[in-house]
Amino acid sequence: MGDRLEPLRGVISPTLTPFNDDLTIAHDLFSDHAQHLLETGCVGLAPFGTTGEALSLGIEERIAALEHLIDRGIDPKRLIPGTGLTNLPDTARLTRHAVDLGCAGALVLPPFYFKNVSDDGLFAYFAGLVERMAAGGLRLYLYHIPPVAQVGLSVDLVQRLRAAFPAQVVGIKDSSGDWTNTRRLLTEVAGLIVYPGSELSLLDALSLGAPGCITATANINAAQIAEVIALYRDGKEAEAKRQHEPVKQLRLTVQEYGPIPAQKYLLSAWSGDKRWRNVRPPFVNLPDAAGRQLSDALQRDLAFSPLRHTRV
Amino acid sequence: MGDRLEPLRGVISPTLTPFNDDLTIAHDLFSDHAQHLLETGCVGLAPFGTTGEALSLGIEERIAALEHLIDRGIDPKRLIPGTGLTNLPDTARLTRHAVDLGCAGALVLPPFYFKNVSDDGLFAYFAGLVERMAAGGLRLYLYHIPPVAQVGLSVDLVQRLRAAFPAQVVGIKDSSGDWTNTRRLLTEVAGLIVYPGSELSLLDALSLGAPGCITATANINAAQIAEVIALYRDGKEAEAKRQHEPVKQLRLTVQEYGPIPAQKYLLSAWSGDKRWRNVRPPFVNLPDAAGRQLSDALQRDLAFSPLRHTRV
Repeated sequence: MGDRLEPLRGVISPTLTPFNDDLTIAHDLFSDHAQHLLETGCVGLAPFGTTGEALSLGIEERIAALEHLIDRGIDPKRLIPGTGLTNLPDTARLTRHAVDLGCAGALVLPPFYFKNVSDDGLFAYFAGLVERMAAGGLRLYLYHIPPVAQVGLSVDLVQRLRAAFPAQVVGIKDSSGDWTNTRRLLTEVAGLIVYPGSELSLLDALSLGAPGCITATANINAAQIAEVIALYRDGKEAEAKRQHEPVKQLRLTVQEYGPIPAQKYLLSAWSGDKRWRNVRPPFVNLPDAAGRQLSDALQRDLAFSPLRHTRV
Repeated sequence: MGDRLEPLRGVISPTLTPFNDDLTIAHDLFSDHAQHLLETGCVGLAPFGTTGEALSLGIEERIAALEHLIDRGIDPKRLIPGTGLTNLPDTARLTRHAVDLGCAGALVLPPFYFKNVSDDGLFAYFAGLVERMAAGGLRLYLYHIPPVAQVGLSVDLVQRLRAAFPAQVVGIKDSSGDWTNTRRLLTEVAGLIVYPGSELSLLDALSLGAPGCITATANINAAQIAEVIALYRDGKEAEAKRQHEPVKQLRLTVQEYGPIPAQKYLLSAWSGDKRWRNVRPPFVNLPDAAGRQLSDALQRDLAFSPLRHTRV
């Protein structure tokens, strides 16, 4: 594979960030959840992604929370934290911090405030980040999530960045929800590690060389997603396909309710720790009625139980 | 006017941020430009808005640059700096800093990363900011700029915020480019200070009680915009209308070229200081050919000369 980095192979959870009732980060719940995810199917974690409400956290909070995770025993080699903001100095600061802690990589958004910017401008932004990280160690995963960030990364731009900085620009999380885009990244950009941002097209992505996926619903369904990957790797494709069906159904069901408040509701209900309900504005907590409806739907239609989600 | 705050009346410039060739902030050019704007027609400045590439600046850079402006003699009572990010802790930090320096107000974006969020969530965000600023002094101007931020503030939400926090939520900059929205804000939200984010509908806005406008093109055309306002205030409506025409034309012409790189090109050409060309990624410098074309268009079609823009 040449200079291709050996990626984390399996399901990676963009970890939810739990909050205390005063909306400060609940560090105890955060590290317990991280530990639990790594013990029940996740090969890695991507804290401070969209699902982690990262853009609702202050810079100092992100730094403290990442250090806390590692202090509590989470192996930094399993972590690909989000470090992308809208500006280079603060993005470089967070990225340098993650690299210095020994993280497996850093997941970086394009600058997402200004819209309709050119590929040349976005190229210059990432080139600027690579330059600021000159001391080395950067393993940059581009974060392509146009439905939220609005500013996306074209396949052509990804190719240019990978070609210009092969040692630094190692991969991408593709949360476009557009399989054509994911397929192009997997087949057209040499040596790029491509994680789809969802489990919906997981088997197709694995068949084209993806090492796994980074998906929001891994926060509650890591074990089943990991099982699909394991079956596929063992050559049991038919069985993998069958197991993939309820995994996809769960994703689609949770999505309808808004993945962040919905999953926080479920974790609160299952764990008995009401703090899990808390989200930061601009999100609002999932209303009780909707939460019960979602919980019923998972149990009734998908035979998904609080116990099952902890199964490895 | 009851508890309505006396606003800055006239044209306010969302100040461009000049950069050295290494893309650090050119503090000398910044304060010179600010001084020049206040001497040639601007009644106030709104540094660190969209035009100021604020979201391309780091937090520490913004703090240092604001302090530098004031150290160099710019009266903080003439400043309404942008302080809005996507998260509350850092937004509160910048806002507190501006308030403590004695600024006339702070211009705050809604949290703009997550899209399709509810009015309740946005209300909670601004309520959280007011709460964090409990020590007082906050004069919050909401920053409504849906073409860029994508996340906007409905008239209903503005009404709710104004009603809940009449001492803190004093005004809004409406950069929607939608006159119906500006009109509704001016006529339906009691006691709200409304600055349109452009000079295009300036006279209509003044006639409904707007104290002026906050407009990008004030960076190069403050004197003429100020003249339109002065004529209107002196009751010379016909003359104001006539003078408004070339002002609108200039705006529309500059807009075509991208207001930030275009105005920086012009300031570079007029001042002879090549640093004015520099923009931070994701923007790219205006190409020479386009710059010359723009410059020609202004001089030929609008009889606009480098000297005129300094006229009071």
